[in-house]
Amino acid sequence: MGKTIAINAGSSTLKFKLFEMPAERVIASGAVERIGLAQSPVHIRYGLDHDYQETEQVADHQTAVNIILDELIKLHIIERYDEITGIGHRVVAGGELFHDSVLITDSVLAKIDALAEYAPLHNPANAVGIRAFKRLLPNVPAVAVFDTAFHASMPQINYLYSLPYEYYQQYGARRFGAHGTSHRYVAVRAAKFLDRPLSELKLITLHLGAGSSITAIKNGQSYDTSMGFTPLAGITMATRSGDVDPSLVAFLMQKLHVTDPEKMLSILNTQSGLLGLAGSADMQELEARYDHDERARLAIDIFVNRIVKYVGAYLAELGGADALVFTAGIGERDARMRQRIADQLSYFGVEIDADRNQVSGVERDLSCPNATIRSLLIPTDEELMIARDVERVGHGR
Amino acid sequence: MGKTIAINAGSSTLKFKLFEMPAERVIASGAVERIGLAQSPVHIRYGLDHDYQETEQVADHQTAVNIILDELIKLHIIERYDEITGIGHRVVAGGELFHDSVLITDSVLAKIDALAEYAPLHNPANAVGIRAFKRLLPNVPAVAVFDTAFHASMPQINYLYSLPYEYYQQYGARRFGAHGTSHRYVAVRAAKFLDRPLSELKLITLHLGAGSSITAIKNGQSYDTSMGFTPLAGITMATRSGDVDPSLVAFLMQKLHVTDPEKMLSILNTQSGLLGLAGSADMQELEARYDHDERARLAIDIFVNRIVKYVGAYLAELGGADALVFTAGIGERDARMRQRIADQLSYFGVEIDADRNQVSGVERDLSCPNATIRSLLIPTDEELMIARDVERVGHGR
Repeated sequence: MGKTIAINAGSSTLKFKLFEMPAERVIASGAVERIGLAQSPVHIRYGLDHDYQETEQVADHQTAVNIILDELIKLHIIERYDEITGIGHRVVAGGELFHDSVLITDSVLAKIDALAEYAPLHNPANAVGIRAFKRLLPNVPAVAVFDTAFHASMPQINYLYSLPYEYYQQYGARRFGAHGTSHRYVAVRAAKFLDRPLSELKLITLHLGAGSSITAIKNGQSYDTSMGFTPLAGITMATRSGDVDPSLVAFLMQKLHVTDPEKMLSILNTQSGLLGLAGSADMQELEARYDHDERARLAIDIFVNRIVKYVGAYLAELGGADALVFTAGIGERDARMRQRIADQLSYFGVEIDADRNQVSGVERDLSCPNATIRSLLIPTDEELMIARDVERVGHGR
Repeated sequence: MGKTIAINAGSSTLKFKLFEMPAERVIASGAVERIGLAQSPVHIRYGLDHDYQETEQVADHQTAVNIILDELIKLHIIERYDEITGIGHRVVAGGELFHDSVLITDSVLAKIDALAEYAPLHNPANAVGIRAFKRLLPNVPAVAVFDTAFHASMPQINYLYSLPYEYYQQYGARRFGAHGTSHRYVAVRAAKFLDRPLSELKLITLHLGAGSSITAIKNGQSYDTSMGFTPLAGITMATRSGDVDPSLVAFLMQKLHVTDPEKMLSILNTQSGLLGLAGSADMQELEARYDHDERARLAIDIFVNRIVKYVGAYLAELGGADALVFTAGIGERDARMRQRIADQLSYFGVEIDADRNQVSGVERDLSCPNATIRSLLIPTDEELMIARDVERVGHGR
């Protein structure tokens, strides 16, 4: 028995979840935010309802790691560092180099650095988190769990764009997808829930949160996914545009007098999506405005439309599906959204029971008895998936 | 009774088709190509099997129009100019200004000029063609038929991108689609063929040629279409990429040391698609290579995959369809391609009869008797649709 910590390091945040493994019991979770800015909130939840909150000077990720580990001891969550027997790090881009989670060696770390060109905001932050833990816990096995790895099974027809082939060979211009750890987790749970082997299942998993993606799963493996070369592509998101005609990049640069294409993409990443359409990136707020605010309704209707189209596309290429799986913030908690999506897919035999659908954040079959494609609610747990990968890859269990 | 000429002016070409109306009988057709280059081939077909070919110095579109009208008289296809009682001009971009074909006035022509920002290569050429005919036949009613007009019926959820809303209001950044005249023509024919009112039909029309687009038609009107702000978006085409993650525009610019985004888009428009994947933009050549050439097979498989996904997406948002309609070069003549597409849509009740499918360029129901979604072959005829619009809009018939 040991304790495994799952780490998600962003550019100015460091989130963690501490598990007792293999029992999969959550011991504590928390985050340090606004790292490098003036005052950084530190937040740790532990025990039944303990909540530690403090604001500290946190200059960098190393300091954040020091503070978290110190507080874990001060709060008697652990007594000694060596109780932590495994570390799992979320890494955004694994490119074509990593098809599964992997024990982090110097060579692996160098590759994660090199893959920063595919995730310039994320991979460097992930690497900083890895190095910070390595300094304090140099002898504890650390495992990198890649957002892209689950999608490594996609066939070439789905990961290739219709671009000059050498752009793929020379520059790695292809679809990588993201949210792989979440799609994988809910697929595994869905198979257990349906009491069928994952390897026999066709699923369409809908990870609907601030970032959203939809994955077509065939024989338990990712077959296609809505995010693309980057997490910008696919369906409408909180602040990301999802799919747009690439011609608009040049057209809008000219109109907006933007000279740097990266600047234009930053607008597509941070000022578009629901925020761009309706002035708010918060789906709860938009839901509250839906009945009386035309723009909120438009944004939600577009969000639903894009989801419905991806589901239709994936039903086509999978030749049907056993179940749709709703997960992540919106998928787990927005019953009206699930109902809208299912209503528009009724032609395919998707049917949600209005009563069963009045639920939030628990595993449940939401379907009417006569539905030919089940609709499942499966709360995601990327941190648990990371902790499991530490067991499997770091300890060979 | 009169003669109507349908004109399609490109940047260096001028194609025409001369009809006897309302009989809809083709009297002649032809083209002047490579206008402004050294030697311009002039080609006119008329009568049962007459074929006139010549190479001339054609400096500009005005000269091309002069030559065509002169030759029509010299070849005794017409005896006098005033036999031509109507002119129809294909215009690529109608923006939000034109929801139907329209009699060309000075004000209309000014608008066509202004819409050049949505079709910088096409609208200026279309306008040149309009002016050239106007000089020679100033008193003949001329009608503009817009590629985008049929798609004016799309609902906002489908024409809006998930971008800041003001980009739509201020700059017209939205989906316009293209090939509208073709989708409209085959929809009208499909309704006749099925002997049902178009206004009751749900159709998915597949215009598969060098440029390809798919349209979802609901109650006889365009509801969604795969081309976007420009004809770059959508499925894989001969040389166009179709949909790609817009992030790739910036990423590839950096890799290829391209500083002008328009240059990058030119690569996506002219060096991508089938050409980029397999080194040939010619589907007949790729079909010939399919069985022994991996890259040709890949390109074709990707082409089919993108079509199948759009059909699935449109079945989802239409809630089913009465028929798929195959048209344009590949759709009319490539039986193997139709078979592949139908095979991958069998889950939805699409089924093509292999024997009935052995046909090219005639109207036919290709379906097996038990298919729940019919598969129709309907050869397109944009020029005839243009001539009909001249009758309707130009003569009020």
